Amino acid sequence: MSKSNINRRKSHTVQVGKVSIGGSSPIVIQSMTDTNTSDIEKTVDQIIQLADAGSEIVRVTVNDSEAIKSIPYIKDKLFHSNVTVPLVGDFHFNGHILLDKYYKEAAYLDKFRINPGNVGKKNKKDKNFTTMIEAACKLDKPVRIGVNWGSLDQELLASKLDLNNKSKSPKSLDEIMCDTVISSALENAKLAESLGMHKSKIIISCKLSKVNMLIDVYRKIAKLCEYPLHLGLTEAGSNERGVVYSSCALGPLLLDGIGDTIRVSLTTDINGERTKEVEISKLILQSFGIRYFLPDVTSCPGCGRTSSDYFQKLAFDIDQYIKKNMPLWKKNYPGVENLKISVMGCIVNGPGESKHADIGISLPGRGENPTAPVYIDGEKKLTLKGDNITGDFKKILLEYIDNKYK
Amino acid sequence: MSKSNINRRKSHTVQVGKVSIGGSSPIVIQSMTDTNTSDIEKTVDQIIQLADAGSEIVRVTVNDSEAIKSIPYIKDKLFHSNVTVPLVGDFHFNGHILLDKYYKEAAYLDKFRINPGNVGKKNKKDKNFTTMIEAACKLDKPVRIGVNWGSLDQELLASKLDLNNKSKSPKSLDEIMCDTVISSALENAKLAESLGMHKSKIIISCKLSKVNMLIDVYRKIAKLCEYPLHLGLTEAGSNERGVVYSSCALGPLLLDGIGDTIRVSLTTDINGERTKEVEISKLILQSFGIRYFLPDVTSCPGCGRTSSDYFQKLAFDIDQYIKKNMPLWKKNYPGVENLKISVMGCIVNGPGESKHADIGISLPGRGENPTAPVYIDGEKKLTLKGDNITGDFKKILLEYIDNKYK
Repeated sequence: MSKSNINRRKSHTVQVGKVSIGGSSPIVIQSMTDTNTSDIEKTVDQIIQLADAGSEIVRVTVNDSEAIKSIPYIKDKLFHSNVTVPLVGDFHFNGHILLDKYYKEAAYLDKFRINPGNVGKKNKKDKNFTTMIEAACKLDKPVRIGVNWGSLDQELLASKLDLNNKSKSPKSLDEIMCDTVISSALENAKLAESLGMHKSKIIISCKLSKVNMLIDVYRKIAKLCEYPLHLGLTEAGSNERGVVYSSCALGPLLLDGIGDTIRVSLTTDINGERTKEVEISKLILQSFGIRYFLPDVTSCPGCGRTSSDYFQKLAFDIDQYIKKNMPLWKKNYPGVENLKISVMGCIVNGPGESKHADIGISLPGRGENPTAPVYIDGEKKLTLKGDNITGDFKKILLEYIDNKYK
Repeated sequence: MSKSNINRRKSHTVQVGKVSIGGSSPIVIQSMTDTNTSDIEKTVDQIIQLADAGSEIVRVTVNDSEAIKSIPYIKDKLFHSNVTVPLVGDFHFNGHILLDKYYKEAAYLDKFRINPGNVGKKNKKDKNFTTMIEAACKLDKPVRIGVNWGSLDQELLASKLDLNNKSKSPKSLDEIMCDTVISSALENAKLAESLGMHKSKIIISCKLSKVNMLIDVYRKIAKLCEYPLHLGLTEAGSNERGVVYSSCALGPLLLDGIGDTIRVSLTTDINGERTKEVEISKLILQSFGIRYFLPDVTSCPGCGRTSSDYFQKLAFDIDQYIKKNMPLWKKNYPGVENLKISVMGCIVNGPGESKHADIGISLPGRGENPTAPVYIDGEKKLTLKGDNITGDFKKILLEYIDNKYK
């Protein structure tokens, strides 16, 4: 059911360490550390956490000489922990100096992120950008030309605004802003190619923090080039705001087949986990059936018909049970991430929704018989009752998994 | 900035109590109680909570005679609490009996939700549906013809599958399922009109729990009728799964201009608030600039450049400060919900993003001067330093609000 019928935009493939981005490769999830990069131990710990959570590429800031000198040690520690996740170095302002001076250390990175709005001003801009691209070429590293409207090339913007002011039908400031973001990415990609970088080494991103503008920009740039596109809503914010805004920004683009790698940029909650951005990325891709990471639990919101406490507890227990067991299941039951489970609260949609799942349970609503039919592969197979419906259902679920995925 | 440029689908307007749905009316947020409807006190309390949170319509299950007999008392108590939110009665299986027998009580509802898959089988189906539509007509109430694939008319599905099996180029089961959901809604709407119900009394919904299929169904039905559409991903599930899946399902449709009222169907977390579904609905609409409910706080995810603890705390404090003060601000500062704030962690995108906001602060990253420039209406206005940057920024924020929205 519900197989993704999305037509992926055509792009070439870029190799980042062991990971392919673009072409027909699966859409890659990535994230970024928030530790001080030169704190090697903390940075390694967080990279491992992010990779374990499902981040297939991890970016670290490389903001000074201490940071870049730490990279070989970080890579070495990761290697000894059997963590092979590709590492991306994030450069701003002084990237040309660092890549020139610490050439050997830079060789340990798998990709450089270059922000063309932060490479210098006036005549230094192209010079510094050139230094960085030449380092990447010599080291045979791919780059991301990563534009962000929060650090947009102001000279380019000014020149576009000047032109617009002279136009007979001037565009809005928002439109010029979007045009400039796109131009900055494409002109610098072209410059990189003219400097000898092969197009199969270039990924592009154009990040803004406004959902509608971001979607407009990506829909436009998707048609203008065949570079793989890195998607992300920049500065998405905290808590549910960040989750909803990122989903609303990335969703329509992924559905259009746009996007080859994604990053969800959440402000980490106090006491929150940095890995949340990876979990949300997985849910976004899974919601469209683009990739599957975890058995999918469909459950109803409950209403006046459901015995709410009992229903909520079962839904919660099943969720926790899956999350807890998934590391083991993943090893023992290949394909288990495709499983569809439904946990329903009453007879209104319970049996029907359960039939659409691989395995589903329909709890008795108020006034219904205190029995819970279980549906397997679309058919009612048995009925649970008594005090241990949750335990019984978990047992049946495990048997089903053991049968189907062993 | 980022005004919504969405072209809304054409639909007629349906009046539900004091609330208009469809046409050029704002997209309406609705929700549903999960209390036992005949527990009048609990139900009233939850309706008030939902309405206070921003639910502009509230649905309650009307599952038995006790439930429908409670409606006049619920309405009365709401009236005495000055809560005028329209109430929708959700009918399944026995709606024809309840609406016939408790005609006077039904008059206290503002809309009836009729599920054409749950009105009866064979020759009783149209008869029971007719009874309900006639009651609505006599009471001058609008209806929602609410189809759900979990309770789809199985006879209609079987007939469509039969036809499909005989076809030379048969469609997939998923396609037939989607076609049947649409047919069930449109055929019953047509039947309602033939029974004398004016089209301006009919709203339609077609809910499925699979994101891609839901989007396909709504894109299709949007072209086939001018009834206002009630959007929602059914059985979206718990926690972040429910939030992400609902956002990914509703987002692309809203961006296409489809949807006149929305409901987010989250399985309430244990100890969670039922109002969460309303908060998520607001965020979805606000993410696209369709409606504004709360000042928007853009904040970066932080990285190795940011002094993470301090930055996260400021972002969190500002968020809490706004949420806490919003009830008061809403009264004193009309329009304050349009405010754009940015809280950024370092110099990379901090000043730029802050300039895009109405008011923004850019904290010092590692190695930067320990000062935080504040930007107001796109210009750097002052620089904060010392131990009380958070308090100082809140003060400046309040002054800004007081100046702009008083």
